[in-house]
Amino acid sequence: MAKNQVNKILKEYLFITGGDPSGIGPEIIRKSLYQLGKNYQNLKIFYIFNSSSEELEKLFTQLMDWQIYVINNKKWSEKEFFLLKDLSIPEKNLLFIYQVGLYNHTYPTQQSGKLAFLALKEAVNLIKLYGCKGLVTAPVSKEWIGKNQPNFSGHTGFLAKEFKTHVLMIMYSNYFSVIPLTEHIPIKKVSKELYKKLQDPQLIKLLKALYNKHIFKKRWAFCGLNPHAGDNGLIGKEEIEFIKPFIEKLKRNRIPIDGPISADSLFIPDRLQNYDLIFACYHDQGLIPFKTLNGKEGINLTFGLPFLRTSPDHGTAFDIAFKEIADFQSMYNAIEIHLKGLWN
Amino acid sequence: MAKNQVNKILKEYLFITGGDPSGIGPEIIRKSLYQLGKNYQNLKIFYIFNSSSEELEKLFTQLMDWQIYVINNKKWSEKEFFLLKDLSIPEKNLLFIYQVGLYNHTYPTQQSGKLAFLALKEAVNLIKLYGCKGLVTAPVSKEWIGKNQPNFSGHTGFLAKEFKTHVLMIMYSNYFSVIPLTEHIPIKKVSKELYKKLQDPQLIKLLKALYNKHIFKKRWAFCGLNPHAGDNGLIGKEEIEFIKPFIEKLKRNRIPIDGPISADSLFIPDRLQNYDLIFACYHDQGLIPFKTLNGKEGINLTFGLPFLRTSPDHGTAFDIAFKEIADFQSMYNAIEIHLKGLWN
Repeated sequence: MAKNQVNKILKEYLFITGGDPSGIGPEIIRKSLYQLGKNYQNLKIFYIFNSSSEELEKLFTQLMDWQIYVINNKKWSEKEFFLLKDLSIPEKNLLFIYQVGLYNHTYPTQQSGKLAFLALKEAVNLIKLYGCKGLVTAPVSKEWIGKNQPNFSGHTGFLAKEFKTHVLMIMYSNYFSVIPLTEHIPIKKVSKELYKKLQDPQLIKLLKALYNKHIFKKRWAFCGLNPHAGDNGLIGKEEIEFIKPFIEKLKRNRIPIDGPISADSLFIPDRLQNYDLIFACYHDQGLIPFKTLNGKEGINLTFGLPFLRTSPDHGTAFDIAFKEIADFQSMYNAIEIHLKGLWN
Repeated sequence: MAKNQVNKILKEYLFITGGDPSGIGPEIIRKSLYQLGKNYQNLKIFYIFNSSSEELEKLFTQLMDWQIYVINNKKWSEKEFFLLKDLSIPEKNLLFIYQVGLYNHTYPTQQSGKLAFLALKEAVNLIKLYGCKGLVTAPVSKEWIGKNQPNFSGHTGFLAKEFKTHVLMIMYSNYFSVIPLTEHIPIKKVSKELYKKLQDPQLIKLLKALYNKHIFKKRWAFCGLNPHAGDNGLIGKEEIEFIKPFIEKLKRNRIPIDGPISADSLFIPDRLQNYDLIFACYHDQGLIPFKTLNGKEGINLTFGLPFLRTSPDHGTAFDIAFKEIADFQSMYNAIEIHLKGLWN
């Protein structure tokens, strides 16, 4: 079977990576698939699986309407690709489970971190070779992956590096979305990192590309870094020195953006209704209002890769795993956005 | 008339300072008084007035059910105190207007800043001498007061200094309240200032006193400084080095407090319902969720003075002044909390 043919087949599949198998990942994937199976037809999901065999059994039991195939093999053979091809039966939802490992503990270890990373790495390898319809990643623990991969900074950074491209992380929901311009760094490093980020010519390019997608149709808004957006330089100079100039640059590129706006008043619903995309200078500035107002609806989205990548906007939640109480709304939305085709 | 008698009289009065006369202060005070007059009887308000004579006229026209007295005199005479005493007519709401100046422009100047400061200073002088039922301050502009008073850092700091006491600023609402542990400082100084604040033995004393008031009856919560509350030291060490030890100290003082909690998940309503008082490490971390969720209901409250001081949780709003469109809900609540007596 030629690579071209395989390419065409895998391109139709939405990849889901299992995340940390001791977190809530397996549970929210299974619950989402069950619900998606009721709402959609002809789904083609490629699940890179690393959870317990018990979880696998639950999948089989609950996704009875689906056609499910499991392959436990790290070397892809022609036979398997033919299998994938044969699965194109239009009446059924197809779930192809590629087992990169099985994890039978209910707590995280170095091994669960290793398997989480392996699922991601395998997904990347396959996508590089054959393409995909999109990628959904279940939560991983940076702490446990870090035991083997000390440089692992999270999905977004890893994928950008693997696909040698510049990306934007967008916290997305139908209500409003947030781009955090700095992410998982200590608050005292924010000013310096934000400066670097805004100097990067790639950022403007990405934002122009994003604007041209016509997904965010209202105005955009940019939060001030300091309290009261610096109050004309009385509370920090960053707004004057490099934030306003950056916003002016966007305006010159015909992007309709306001700011810097005092972040404490921007998210009051009356004001927020003018905007559907907000730039936050640091993690909590954007994520506090995003999670507070979007509840369980929000997802994490990576823009700039050769495909759309999404994930739920929460972590592994080790403390509630295996209790069947995890909410799957965010994971459901992270999968469903690919089916709507808005970002293609 | 002996000082003792005066003391008894003024103690019954709620002081309101006019704030910057070119902002929305005069308008929201007038609107609040109008509404309060309908909802309450026997109000005794002492308004330190510095607005235009047109505003004074509107007050007279709109507060027709009130008994209003105006004194334009910086030297208090016995006669005036007798007047105050005579005003104790139980059927009417009493508004005593003490004119420290009149400002007839609709834009801020050095003079409007000066008058805003003068009203505050006069209130402090009178309260020091004679006491009060409480103090409500309308918004001032630090920028314009700063032209004459370069060290003016805001109402809270000024009052703490004048009354030689340590205070807590609380953003208060019936839903949940926030104590921002650092305030109007650049984000890059937050870590250092927070460290200083948490080392201050006065803070623990104030928090014990606050706890003993039994106003906040649910659990208290403390936000992490860094994203994900530092993620066990991976994203900043402050949580381990001095935030956790501080929280432990509060626990040893039998204060039921949780934390450090990742701030981006704390304000999701399901989680927030366990708490009614949240400690934020910096301004936007507390004020974004506070304003977003409390809308126009929230007020600013100073705890630790010999009396309760409140104010609306917004600024002078110069841009919408004199258009009769300013929302007065926060100012109304800032006055009404004194009438409810919860904090006495």
